[in-house]
Amino acid sequence: MNRLSLNQITTKSWSLPEAVEGCAAAGIEWIGLWRDKVAEVGVEESARLLRRHGVRVSSLCRGGFFTGVTPEGEPVDGIAMTREAIDEAVALGTDVLVLVVGGVADHDLAGSRQRVADALGELAPYARERGVRLGLEPLHPMQCAERSVLSTLGQALALAEDHPADAVGVVVDEFHVWWDPEVEHSIARSAGRILGFHVCDQLVPLTDTLLGRALPGRGPIDHRRLRECVEAAGYHGPIEVEVFNAEVWRTPGDVVLRDMIGAYRRHVL
Amino acid sequence: MNRLSLNQITTKSWSLPEAVEGCAAAGIEWIGLWRDKVAEVGVEESARLLRRHGVRVSSLCRGGFFTGVTPEGEPVDGIAMTREAIDEAVALGTDVLVLVVGGVADHDLAGSRQRVADALGELAPYARERGVRLGLEPLHPMQCAERSVLSTLGQALALAEDHPADAVGVVVDEFHVWWDPEVEHSIARSAGRILGFHVCDQLVPLTDTLLGRALPGRGPIDHRRLRECVEAAGYHGPIEVEVFNAEVWRTPGDVVLRDMIGAYRRHVL
Repeated sequence: MNRLSLNQITTKSWSLPEAVEGCAAAGIEWIGLWRDKVAEVGVEESARLLRRHGVRVSSLCRGGFFTGVTPEGEPVDGIAMTREAIDEAVALGTDVLVLVVGGVADHDLAGSRQRVADALGELAPYARERGVRLGLEPLHPMQCAERSVLSTLGQALALAEDHPADAVGVVVDEFHVWWDPEVEHSIARSAGRILGFHVCDQLVPLTDTLLGRALPGRGPIDHRRLRECVEAAGYHGPIEVEVFNAEVWRTPGDVVLRDMIGAYRRHVL
Repeated sequence: MNRLSLNQITTKSWSLPEAVEGCAAAGIEWIGLWRDKVAEVGVEESARLLRRHGVRVSSLCRGGFFTGVTPEGEPVDGIAMTREAIDEAVALGTDVLVLVVGGVADHDLAGSRQRVADALGELAPYARERGVRLGLEPLHPMQCAERSVLSTLGQALALAEDHPADAVGVVVDEFHVWWDPEVEHSIARSAGRILGFHVCDQLVPLTDTLLGRALPGRGPIDHRRLRECVEAAGYHGPIEVEVFNAEVWRTPGDVVLRDMIGAYRRHVL
């Protein structure tokens, strides 16, 4: 149980103070923070709240968008944004920054992937100097066009391996990789590079490409199997429960935490 | 232009006679048939219409569902259904039967994939004796749970290679594989096994997991690049345009064919 982490998106209606207090009250020792929630109260106040409640930060979400365009099609300077996020990770006391690398720009998939590699080359030294590791999170292929040209764990690992292991690693999120026939092999190959393990399930039928997630146990994902794989690869850090789901988001946060703890016990541990 | 084939789902509102006549009128020499449309008029009448109009069948869609469950969750005997489909392919004058292998049964991904391998072992000799090749079509990972535990071209090829090349091959459908960082490599490795090339685009944003397709040119897929890849791998057969799209389905068939020919000329050739 001491590895369980609330990824803050799971209690989307909660502010950062509510989420931190909620974790403390429920005995959850870790939290995965989102930058927009941190911004609402400020980095210093966030850090103070975390210390006061004894809740540690498993990761900060997110840097990236290196292809220069947001999911909504707006231009973005992903490198500058990620530098800020690295600094923020330091201030919040976490050494893991999750990267969502950005979707296809200018109808050019190969060029977009090259932009990601180039950005990593620029940012890896900056992160390493500050003791922050960049966590490449491959996103489900259905999010390739809009959010992430990084689509498999093998591809993420290949990118990471161009850099020192204390600068760039990978984040394994079940929702994004469970279907991959190579996933167990890729997890094993990621030994020493795994910076996070995110669990959730996939709704069936899958009717929404973003919100089609659920608490573990509702769908086809074998959570124990994947947990055993990341552990065999040497990862024994926090396990974030990260659920994008409109129904979960309408549920009071304390009920979500209770359900989350139950699902984690029954299906992940 | 003589390689262009209408996959019949693109003109979903048309009956088989309408689609065959439509192709003949538009100068399209090939059609990819769906079994439900064939069933409406019968196999013999379908074959007669095809001969009369000089339209050839690029493939029959579909066999499969070897994991024993339909996308709607109903039980199905995929092996028996596929045997029927093989016989039907012979009667319709095509040597390519497209397989959609079925989704995850009993929350057991590995076991479901094994069922597919087992079914192929049973069906490959039956198909080969009748001169029909089974075309394993990997489906987009977002359809893994419900429709196809076969999610990448590399995975499809590995399955196919357990059988003679004149019994089992692969079908490359752009919508399902365009995002795959290994796709060009996998296409090259599929030389001698490619039984079909299906083109369409992906809508952005992708809001529907089944109907998020469009005519070539609307999305991020580089059709010329992928066509060149399959040609470099030795495939010079029909190119099916296969579009699941509610708006296209509401458009009169003759207009769809005109738009399809235009999109094919501008973005695929």
